Amino acid sequence: MNILFYTIPLIGVWALLYMMFQYRWIEKQYPGEDKMVKIAQYIAKGAMSFLKTEYNMLGYFVFISCLLLFTISYENEYSHPFIILSFVLGAFFSGLSGVIGMKIATKANVRTTQAAKNSLSQAFQMAFTGGKVMGTGVTGLAILGLSVLFIIFYYVFLPENHHQMTIFLEVLTGFSLGAESIALFARVGGGIYTKAADVGADLVGKVEANIPEDDPRNPATIADNVGDNVGDVAGMGADLFGSYVATIIASMVLGSEIYTIQNNSLQGMSCVLLPMLIGAIGILMSMFAFVFIKIKPKHKTSSQVQKALNIGNWIAIFLTALVSYFLVVCLLPDQLILREKSFAAIHIFYAILTGLLVGALVSSVTEYFTSMGKKPVQFIVQQSSTGHATNIISGLSVGMISTVIPVILFALGIGVSFYFAGFYGVAIAATGMMATTAMQLAIDAFGPIADNAGGIAEMSGLPEEVRQRTDILDTVGNTTAATGKGFAIASAALTALALFAAFVKITQIHTIDIYKAPVLAGLFLGSIIPFLFSALSISAVGKAAMTMVAEVRRQFREIKGIMERKVLPDYEKCIDISTQSAIQSMILPGAIAIIFPIIIGFIFGPEVLGGALAGVTVSGVLMAIFQCNAGGAWDNAKKTFEKGAHIQGKMYYKGSEPHKASVTGDTVGDPFKDTSGPSMNILIKLTSIVALVIAPYIAQKNVNVQEKIKNLQSTTTMDNDLKK
Amino acid sequence: MNILFYTIPLIGVWALLYMMFQYRWIEKQYPGEDKMVKIAQYIAKGAMSFLKTEYNMLGYFVFISCLLLFTISYENEYSHPFIILSFVLGAFFSGLSGVIGMKIATKANVRTTQAAKNSLSQAFQMAFTGGKVMGTGVTGLAILGLSVLFIIFYYVFLPENHHQMTIFLEVLTGFSLGAESIALFARVGGGIYTKAADVGADLVGKVEANIPEDDPRNPATIADNVGDNVGDVAGMGADLFGSYVATIIASMVLGSEIYTIQNNSLQGMSCVLLPMLIGAIGILMSMFAFVFIKIKPKHKTSSQVQKALNIGNWIAIFLTALVSYFLVVCLLPDQLILREKSFAAIHIFYAILTGLLVGALVSSVTEYFTSMGKKPVQFIVQQSSTGHATNIISGLSVGMISTVIPVILFALGIGVSFYFAGFYGVAIAATGMMATTAMQLAIDAFGPIADNAGGIAEMSGLPEEVRQRTDILDTVGNTTAATGKGFAIASAALTALALFAAFVKITQIHTIDIYKAPVLAGLFLGSIIPFLFSALSISAVGKAAMTMVAEVRRQFREIKGIMERKVLPDYEKCIDISTQSAIQSMILPGAIAIIFPIIIGFIFGPEVLGGALAGVTVSGVLMAIFQCNAGGAWDNAKKTFEKGAHIQGKMYYKGSEPHKASVTGDTVGDPFKDTSGPSMNILIKLTSIVALVIAPYIAQKNVNVQEKIKNLQSTTTMDNDLKK
Repeated sequence: MNILFYTIPLIGVWALLYMMFQYRWIEKQYPGEDKMVKIAQYIAKGAMSFLKTEYNMLGYFVFISCLLLFTISYENEYSHPFIILSFVLGAFFSGLSGVIGMKIATKANVRTTQAAKNSLSQAFQMAFTGGKVMGTGVTGLAILGLSVLFIIFYYVFLPENHHQMTIFLEVLTGFSLGAESIALFARVGGGIYTKAADVGADLVGKVEANIPEDDPRNPATIADNVGDNVGDVAGMGADLFGSYVATIIASMVLGSEIYTIQNNSLQGMSCVLLPMLIGAIGILMSMFAFVFIKIKPKHKTSSQVQKALNIGNWIAIFLTALVSYFLVVCLLPDQLILREKSFAAIHIFYAILTGLLVGALVSSVTEYFTSMGKKPVQFIVQQSSTGHATNIISGLSVGMISTVIPVILFALGIGVSFYFAGFYGVAIAATGMMATTAMQLAIDAFGPIADNAGGIAEMSGLPEEVRQRTDILDTVGNTTAATGKGFAIASAALTALALFAAFVKITQIHTIDIYKAPVLAGLFLGSIIPFLFSALSISAVGKAAMTMVAEVRRQFREIKGIMERKVLPDYEKCIDISTQSAIQSMILPGAIAIIFPIIIGFIFGPEVLGGALAGVTVSGVLMAIFQCNAGGAWDNAKKTFEKGAHIQGKMYYKGSEPHKASVTGDTVGDPFKDTSGPSMNILIKLTSIVALVIAPYIAQKNVNVQEKIKNLQSTTTMDNDLKK
Repeated sequence: MNILFYTIPLIGVWALLYMMFQYRWIEKQYPGEDKMVKIAQYIAKGAMSFLKTEYNMLGYFVFISCLLLFTISYENEYSHPFIILSFVLGAFFSGLSGVIGMKIATKANVRTTQAAKNSLSQAFQMAFTGGKVMGTGVTGLAILGLSVLFIIFYYVFLPENHHQMTIFLEVLTGFSLGAESIALFARVGGGIYTKAADVGADLVGKVEANIPEDDPRNPATIADNVGDNVGDVAGMGADLFGSYVATIIASMVLGSEIYTIQNNSLQGMSCVLLPMLIGAIGILMSMFAFVFIKIKPKHKTSSQVQKALNIGNWIAIFLTALVSYFLVVCLLPDQLILREKSFAAIHIFYAILTGLLVGALVSSVTEYFTSMGKKPVQFIVQQSSTGHATNIISGLSVGMISTVIPVILFALGIGVSFYFAGFYGVAIAATGMMATTAMQLAIDAFGPIADNAGGIAEMSGLPEEVRQRTDILDTVGNTTAATGKGFAIASAALTALALFAAFVKITQIHTIDIYKAPVLAGLFLGSIIPFLFSALSISAVGKAAMTMVAEVRRQFREIKGIMERKVLPDYEKCIDISTQSAIQSMILPGAIAIIFPIIIGFIFGPEVLGGALAGVTVSGVLMAIFQCNAGGAWDNAKKTFEKGAHIQGKMYYKGSEPHKASVTGDTVGDPFKDTSGPSMNILIKLTSIVALVIAPYIAQKNVNVQEKIKNLQSTTTMDNDLKK
């Protein structure tokens, strides 16, 4: 046991060394001729300047949060001001994940373009190495930070009894709070940035001025390419960093219940340590599986690229499951006791398998609903023939109907993993799913790098074949983005439930009874948060895009010679607009997510807050799936027309009326799938984490609050409450 | 007491006599010249043929349901096969409500056109008298049916103890089940019919052939006008009939708890009788307030019409509240006991006031979000200047954000009315809100009659001023439709919660603890039902509209002389398409609503079903508000352009690019606000009613099921369950 205790940070260090090695390798590659380098520099500069502005603002946020955390934790018998340390470290590492991703992506993009001059396999290797840096960097930082804090706090708090264990885990939760709150701002800010630039660039460039995508004459084109890095790389890096950490911590908190009953110090810690170990093993196995991800020089198609990625992914998942089996068998005693019920340790392994299965199935469903050629996208294509309105109606209905199977899978997943090991089972299922985050992130980050590489090829006026090669990679990137989103939603849903259970455990309320009207009211209140959040973030994109459109139109009008390629447009002005809009618009939705549980918790107490968390989770999961899948389906309906769509015996191509209708759907879908939808994942986790952090405080006040609730209600459940 | 017992059916009879008197008066009016009568006949024939087809299909449904009800109720100690009687009567009366509405609307429409030749005030009188027939007919039937069944069953079951009381109310619930299930089919079927015809007529007629709305050359124009009656009159009549009945019955079931404890026969029945009495009083007061609704011959504007309606509405509400006060004071003993807690009877009156207040406030919020000139609609107007996509994005975000305040109001309403009188307080609040349904329905039904009158004026080629007068009425109708929807959602939400509480009472499960994973899974499963339902109904509209578009295009192409007004198009073919699509497409969503709670209840038991009901209600309420308000806002954004919209210093009118974008939004909004959105109200009530009906059966099996759940869970709440 003691050895395992110290192995985890070493795995983190190893992952970071691996990352640095890969990073160096990329840096050493030839970035191409001057023109390419110059464009890449524009993008890198824009991206870093956004990060700087964003992190400056977040500095204030972190400072204020520290003050609040101090008030909450100071002299609270279930917390400790050390939580500030974990919080700051979590926030810092989350931010650092974003920087690492951004740095490597803005170096790998131009080198991928350069490599694409030679062959698809070289370009793929370059883009995917960028992804590997991202994957190992993010997860390495997460596991290193978490395990080092674990060791420090272990010696500070010596969690030998239930009370000390609660403080110990509470303080550790600060790490997750820091990570997820930065992640939320990064995701929302990045999402607004990238879509404002994208929509703005497209509406004037493609539609009005009739110039192709990524044309250097378009003033918003650099902002658009910066956006890919800001949203899809830095935002996603912070997002998955947060998910990874939150999942592991929720499992640890719930694992401590098993410890409590065994009450045998280190042996009893097994279920607390297990999630971190699985997380660390997942990184190792992902790094091992990277070896198998390569394509041969003769390979030329996107399906060959896709196949290489799939093989690697499945190897990582399979190996992680296998090692988890041995971990569970060797580490845990045969029989465990959770809340007076004994169960076999192997059940925990079954719960992990359940998580892996649910994750894989949800990803497949997502792929089905958003893939070209499949029924849902075909339906949208057909409906585009009668115009913009029917395209939108059909996309919305595809998005709505796509929620059904994933939610049934969640419900089954919850039921089955709970059956195996209570809420610890649900949490460990999520941990199993998240274990291969390093691989998942590498696959996800590869997409925007390839996308950027294509942009640089276009702007530098490189030969057609270069762009063709990057386009092949980009197509694969779009598919992996869709399945990656399914995976992110699935893990977020399970993690949120695990956090929810951890919250109930810490507050010791034992039930969340929606037959009490205040709790039911809480459920209603929670359910509006995702709607409010979505509305704010997508209307922010709408507003920012309008400003961008006005600016691009102004430059075309006022700066003479842009169209004749005599003068360069003012790229920086557009970058500025995106940056400012994103930073300003991310504050309110972010603040709501953090303040809402605090208000509910402090005014109405833990049980109502529990109801509210359930409300946020249920409506957040629905909105996430609805928006991501509707957006993905619209996108591919549009792409279908670009290749030629068959409607009632006629062929329609780019430029036809149905194609124009499909462009409308794609534009509506952009903020859905890249701003609001993915933010839902963080939203549902963050509200639960905030609740978890304030849990000891509201639990202390719980006695008073319970009196209040009791006055508000007159059901027989009163009798039950009295015991608490 | 005994007198009150028999007064209620008399009020029902009086309302029906009043209705017949008004009906006769309308029939006696001159319907105008031959051309008008002929068009009106086309519409009336189309409407009745739809109803016939629909009711034929529903006949099978009623038959199958009776068989199922027999199996459930036979030899069940908490039910009785007499439930079949109430079910059939509920279904029959609900259908009859639709027929009455349809009959009078298709007579009042042409007479309103005729009256509009003379003056606005005469036209208003005619259209509103049509509304009055609808309002008194529907509520009269409801209260008559309910009270007669009440009296019969009272003498059959002699509900002197708790057990008999449960059977008595259970059997009575069948009336609501019959009413709501017919209502759901009518709403969905009618909604699909009307929007398929509307979208189809507009897409080809207005956009492609460039002929005005309601032009007789458009083959779909009669179907469009039939649709107004089928959806907005018959569908809405059945809808509000169902709501009215469901609310009263849920309150009666919860009122029986107060009875049980007092255990003093008739005196103890007070809280069971009270909801019916309030309902009956509401009809009387509405009929009285009708007297005040008139406009003077000199009145010419829509705001004067609106004012007349508002005055009448507020008089009805105020008087109903006043009489309710005296009812509560005189009928109930000073102190009541609910679940071992005593409270003052006057608290019940406060709960009624809470309901009235929440209803009024939610209506105002709805009005704000959907009114021309207000910020939300202005935002959509502004965003239309950058195209179809930004129009859609802004409408969706307005719809999402509009959920926030209503849901906060619900949460407050639930908390406050619960504080006053437990879940009986919540139910009686809903009853108070629904009491003036007769008035609400009269105001609501007046809109489509005026709309139809305008259509007939246009098709008959009457002078411009006639159309102008009907347009004034139509404008008012659009506003009342929006506020009416707010009212319908508010009452449905409270009713659903009351039904939910009644369900918990009957099953005697005492808690619905979402900290049990199966219950939480139930919450998730329930929440997808509204998404599935919406997706099915709006995609049905999309598909039916496409068929309609194809048919209209075909007629223009193949039938020579339509455009030159030499030949009449084939109206019946279009009516047929709408009818067939509507009937076919309503089956699946309707069936889901009914079967879902049965499956969950029988497999997983009452507590999981309780979780699922909460899920359906929460996500259904959100979807209802989101869809109705987004649709209303899009509609009025489009109308803003018709009057001239000011965007960034320029004026834009009909035919401009931003206007075209706004038409897209309006078309997307149509199925939102007229098909899917209003159906949500019935959906959330119907699932709860189905649950309530099967409650005794699953309660009987509950002991076995509880064992199963207990195996699935290992929380300390186990201890609490054991007691049950």
